[in-house]
Amino acid sequence: MKIVFFGKNAANFHPGFQELLEGPAEIALISDALDQPGEAALLAQADVVIGVRYDAGMPPLSARLFQLPAAGYDGVDFTRLPTTCAICNAFGHEVAIAEYVMASLLARHVPIADADARLRQGDWHYGSGGANGLRTELGSQSIGIIGHGHIGRTVAARALAFGMAVHVANRSPVNVPGYAGVYGLGELSDMLGRVDIVLNTLPLSPETKGLVGQAAFAAMRPHATFLNVGRGAVVDEAALFEALSSKRIGSAIIDTWYVYPSADRPNPMPGNFPFETLSNVTLTPHMSGWTDGTVRRRTQTCAENVNRLAAGKPLLNSVGQGLDPQ
Amino acid sequence: MKIVFFGKNAANFHPGFQELLEGPAEIALISDALDQPGEAALLAQADVVIGVRYDAGMPPLSARLFQLPAAGYDGVDFTRLPTTCAICNAFGHEVAIAEYVMASLLARHVPIADADARLRQGDWHYGSGGANGLRTELGSQSIGIIGHGHIGRTVAARALAFGMAVHVANRSPVNVPGYAGVYGLGELSDMLGRVDIVLNTLPLSPETKGLVGQAAFAAMRPHATFLNVGRGAVVDEAALFEALSSKRIGSAIIDTWYVYPSADRPNPMPGNFPFETLSNVTLTPHMSGWTDGTVRRRTQTCAENVNRLAAGKPLLNSVGQGLDPQ
Repeated sequence: MKIVFFGKNAANFHPGFQELLEGPAEIALISDALDQPGEAALLAQADVVIGVRYDAGMPPLSARLFQLPAAGYDGVDFTRLPTTCAICNAFGHEVAIAEYVMASLLARHVPIADADARLRQGDWHYGSGGANGLRTELGSQSIGIIGHGHIGRTVAARALAFGMAVHVANRSPVNVPGYAGVYGLGELSDMLGRVDIVLNTLPLSPETKGLVGQAAFAAMRPHATFLNVGRGAVVDEAALFEALSSKRIGSAIIDTWYVYPSADRPNPMPGNFPFETLSNVTLTPHMSGWTDGTVRRRTQTCAENVNRLAAGKPLLNSVGQGLDPQ
Repeated sequence: MKIVFFGKNAANFHPGFQELLEGPAEIALISDALDQPGEAALLAQADVVIGVRYDAGMPPLSARLFQLPAAGYDGVDFTRLPTTCAICNAFGHEVAIAEYVMASLLARHVPIADADARLRQGDWHYGSGGANGLRTELGSQSIGIIGHGHIGRTVAARALAFGMAVHVANRSPVNVPGYAGVYGLGELSDMLGRVDIVLNTLPLSPETKGLVGQAAFAAMRPHATFLNVGRGAVVDEAALFEALSSKRIGSAIIDTWYVYPSADRPNPMPGNFPFETLSNVTLTPHMSGWTDGTVRRRTQTCAENVNRLAAGKPLLNSVGQGLDPQ
């Protein structure tokens, strides 16, 4: 089995990979730019490509499996992959993302770092019995989660444990005990007006692009906190900037963006609008799912699918086949 | 019914209190110092005293109820209260404390503030796919909780929801599904060697004073994080300082202390040892339970007990009777 890890992102999932394989394999790591000798040929001849991107200008593949070590497959152009090639993704990031969501929300209620800095100076500001330092509780807040996939379900379980009222909007029906409300995506505005916190977990697709737009922000409560850990483009960028800069909503915590680093712009600002000038938004660099646990679980998924391919068993997490009849 | 709110701490629970009473009441707020005209008489004649402290030098009481709007009653000298006086405490802080614990632990895994500061400068350090910014997960850690009362149970439920392995050490037997281990207090060392995080939730009593001492720190793992949200003196101060300064354990998050503000020293350092010079300890000013929700729930408990006293019904949260036959 010829296996290629294509690019810098995929290379993160190489350590420990070979030990998980049940059969022999020739494994190569190649660059994103494909600018080293022999890299294009290695890619073209691989049985399995592990990577997050495939588009125009890359050599035609003969791979039987294009395995993403990631959930989002919007960087892969299915029309350029052969019909004999299965495309599979990987999850395992939902635990990490749920920790990011709960950590970023809790940080707004429990000022640990400020309390520590103050007490080192003898300042007991936040202490029990002092009316000035009285905190609020996350548990008394309600959250509306858009999307009830791996991420939505994992966040919901933690939010319920904190006593939060959990509302869910999803394309298909949801039947989980304990939710305060369940809505179809067409009823999104109904949910948005009822919650303190709105979390988008949806991936990018033609159906979700711009789903959270001007109407959605208009439906949110004035104090609402909006989080995006899905994909940037699910949220209309101009509408988000306007909602924050005009203080139409209270605040936002944004992890998925509109501008990403590239070879020629390694340190861009993350938006086409100056989000970095706003004080009511927390900006993080698409980090929510990025943990050692995510890497470990995704490495396991990638290896498992190679083993299944070799054994002729059904693949995990298939998201489709290539569309190029060649 | 004559009701006195005694001192600055108790006064926090006065707003909204009277509206919860079912019968008539004369309510007075008096100072900690009892240095205003008539305050000593108001205290002496009250049917109900709501306060957190009663000791030598205070006038004898004829109260039938000494109601603490707090859990810890180590500030009340039962031997100076009449045998006809019931002493009751109040909880309602466990939700707040659990949020403090989870927030302070999550903050060590998810560097939200640093990520935000960096991205505003175009630095994508923590972003997915970059090996340098890879985080760890709280969910892969184990926690050993000392004490399975209101606080211990409430933290445990949240820790379980995060996927953590939860161990509990308690005086009386514990039978909750899902715990990784349960220990008696005499088997504390067994638990301490098996967990990444140790949380003390125990109140102060003759049995718990110094319970977490040199032997306990010696039994902890070298990388262990120790938290105290119980009472300071449950943990031997010299042993804690030594364990941290010698790096015998990894780190600590300490909310309950050895030195507290007083009228003549309003801004003391919180220990008799210079904890504020250590970088492996987070110092917070006894803030863990101090939220608007705690105040609301405790105000409800105080009012409920006044209503029960007036109606001759059994009181909630009785912790004993006075011991002075007078």
